Amino acid sequence: MADARPGFGAGEYARRWEALQARMANAGQDALLLTSSADVFYTTGFLTRFWESPARPWFVILPQTGAPVAVIPEIGAHLMAACHTGEIRTWPAPDPQDDGVGLLTDTLAELVPEQGRIGMPMGLETSLRMPLGDYLHLATALAPRAFVDATDTVQRVREIKSEQEIAAIRTICTIAGRAFDAVPTIVATDRRLDSVFRHFQAALLEAGADWVSYTAGGAGPGGYGDVISPAASVPLQRGDILMLDTGAVKAGYFCDFDRNFAIGPPPDAARRAQDALYAATDRALTDLRPGMTARDAHQLLTTSLRAQGATPCSGRLGHGLGVTLTEWPSFTDRDSTELRENMVLTLEPAVEIGPGKIMVHEENIVLRADGPELLSPRAPCDLPEIEI
Amino acid sequence: MADARPGFGAGEYARRWEALQARMANAGQDALLLTSSADVFYTTGFLTRFWESPARPWFVILPQTGAPVAVIPEIGAHLMAACHTGEIRTWPAPDPQDDGVGLLTDTLAELVPEQGRIGMPMGLETSLRMPLGDYLHLATALAPRAFVDATDTVQRVREIKSEQEIAAIRTICTIAGRAFDAVPTIVATDRRLDSVFRHFQAALLEAGADWVSYTAGGAGPGGYGDVISPAASVPLQRGDILMLDTGAVKAGYFCDFDRNFAIGPPPDAARRAQDALYAATDRALTDLRPGMTARDAHQLLTTSLRAQGATPCSGRLGHGLGVTLTEWPSFTDRDSTELRENMVLTLEPAVEIGPGKIMVHEENIVLRADGPELLSPRAPCDLPEIEI
Repeated sequence: MADARPGFGAGEYARRWEALQARMANAGQDALLLTSSADVFYTTGFLTRFWESPARPWFVILPQTGAPVAVIPEIGAHLMAACHTGEIRTWPAPDPQDDGVGLLTDTLAELVPEQGRIGMPMGLETSLRMPLGDYLHLATALAPRAFVDATDTVQRVREIKSEQEIAAIRTICTIAGRAFDAVPTIVATDRRLDSVFRHFQAALLEAGADWVSYTAGGAGPGGYGDVISPAASVPLQRGDILMLDTGAVKAGYFCDFDRNFAIGPPPDAARRAQDALYAATDRALTDLRPGMTARDAHQLLTTSLRAQGATPCSGRLGHGLGVTLTEWPSFTDRDSTELRENMVLTLEPAVEIGPGKIMVHEENIVLRADGPELLSPRAPCDLPEIEI
Repeated sequence: MADARPGFGAGEYARRWEALQARMANAGQDALLLTSSADVFYTTGFLTRFWESPARPWFVILPQTGAPVAVIPEIGAHLMAACHTGEIRTWPAPDPQDDGVGLLTDTLAELVPEQGRIGMPMGLETSLRMPLGDYLHLATALAPRAFVDATDTVQRVREIKSEQEIAAIRTICTIAGRAFDAVPTIVATDRRLDSVFRHFQAALLEAGADWVSYTAGGAGPGGYGDVISPAASVPLQRGDILMLDTGAVKAGYFCDFDRNFAIGPPPDAARRAQDALYAATDRALTDLRPGMTARDAHQLLTTSLRAQGATPCSGRLGHGLGVTLTEWPSFTDRDSTELRENMVLTLEPAVEIGPGKIMVHEENIVLRADGPELLSPRAPCDLPEIEI
């Protein structure tokens, strides 16, 4: 009989638990305590937008062997029971007197010996999705058990995607590609930037995204400034370069890529930037291999951009992708993380065109033994022109 | 000249800083260290969807007097400079060697005397939006300065909304009301639940929402089960009760209310539940006053439901609302938070109809001196019927 539970089949989760448990054993961690939506989803398939409410913490404990134990608010019991986990313990949250800390303390005390070590992700690109005061209380109550950093344990497992995960990311990339195809029609309807942002999100939903966790972009004459501001209610003008970037979600998996459009004929500088960005991406699509580092990927992109006379932006030029909009590693000259087979990554070269003006390209790939395989539909070689 | 910066005018932010600083002085806190998107937005107007990327922490320090100091990744400098803040210090994030901790340590060491106390929100409904390891390092590096819980400092200020904030929440409630009006048309187009969820989100965007951070709901014969699961691809059937709930966002402010629909004529039990929920909401709209507690609000709703023969659900029956989907307090029998004038709140009575079947109503209000003022358009008294 087919598995009726949401997400992937039971085998996928068993594989994840075993991979984490093997790394835990190597690192001397007797249990993992996970608090983030991404780690809870990864280990159990528990997918809900309810994380948007900061009211309640959620905990998943992965012991040395076997299935995770979920310690969660009772409102989540029904959904968690349909997911991939072992025992589920609940409390009536939010509780100002004890918001699950007592139950969590008891559960960890049962699962971890007194001289044991509890791993939690504490490093780069992690955060603590529970009240800090409750964590400090927990650490004291469970002593002499020690809390130790398990960032490496989690990241080395999560960063290698299964074929099912790769297929899920390809699906949302395809959906986003269809929404990008609709942009000229969207701009023709209403060319104010905030309206374009809204209609682009609607197009992502119409194309099949479950939800749109992230949209960003920019527009300006011959290039744009920062790419993290909300859209202003200003009309696009001829000569503008418009960039739209999205992290849309299907079945819990993200895409993260962008597209650039010229409003009317593009200025020469934007054409040159487009050529340099396109060629740098091509270079990475050809040359990137497992065994290189994130720093190597950064160098590969910057070298290609500079060889064409372009000036790379100082930020990161690519990153991991999966159950969150961005994952480690970061393509910077500071990140020595090894790129490995079946990592899903973004290639995100960016160049400065003039003072306060940049252009950014982004594609999504899976790194195979013989090089990158595109997950996003490749952007057109020439900057598409939209007449207004 | 009009203030060209996004969000509210400079006066609103100066008022917020002073209100926080007065509470800090009372609590003996020499600075506040804020890490969450909500607290950073509240104190500076810095609004971006970039928080969706877990890659980088962001810090805002509010000293005893004057404007906040932002310690942020350099990618945010351009946007932060357009917001309401004092000095902006940046680092090139993500940096595996030192992701801003050195800069943050130095900045706090300058701003806070050695015997001083640094307040951070550490309590109920908060989390630490930075790596735990970096916090632990920071606390050691800054000793003998002490980190103390500033949950009360932040919550007592944020929970009282200005008229500008109330207007912003009313705006997004009105937008969501228009999207709910479109639901019968949406169901007529495609009655699979996941399709209804997607088109409802698109309708919110078309009605003017900047983005849709939250959609939930449920559907089932005569009522629904849990309300946090993603929508399945199953068609609505005659006899189903459909509930849709949204936290849509405009200018950084959320609505959070739901609507119920009967697919064809509703079963009697659903009609009775609707009557009880509607009357309990009416009762709260009439009787709720500043000076009552969250527990009193819970009792008011449960008493009304029970008087009508209905069985209240065990979860919370309302909560705060503002710059996140949910804010404290929680309408439970455990929360003694005082309700005060100009709190924005949800009234969310819920009843059990049968085994694993519930119905939930939700409206958004601002609590005035003489009682609640509706911000959401009031739901219809009778369950609207959608013919399929």
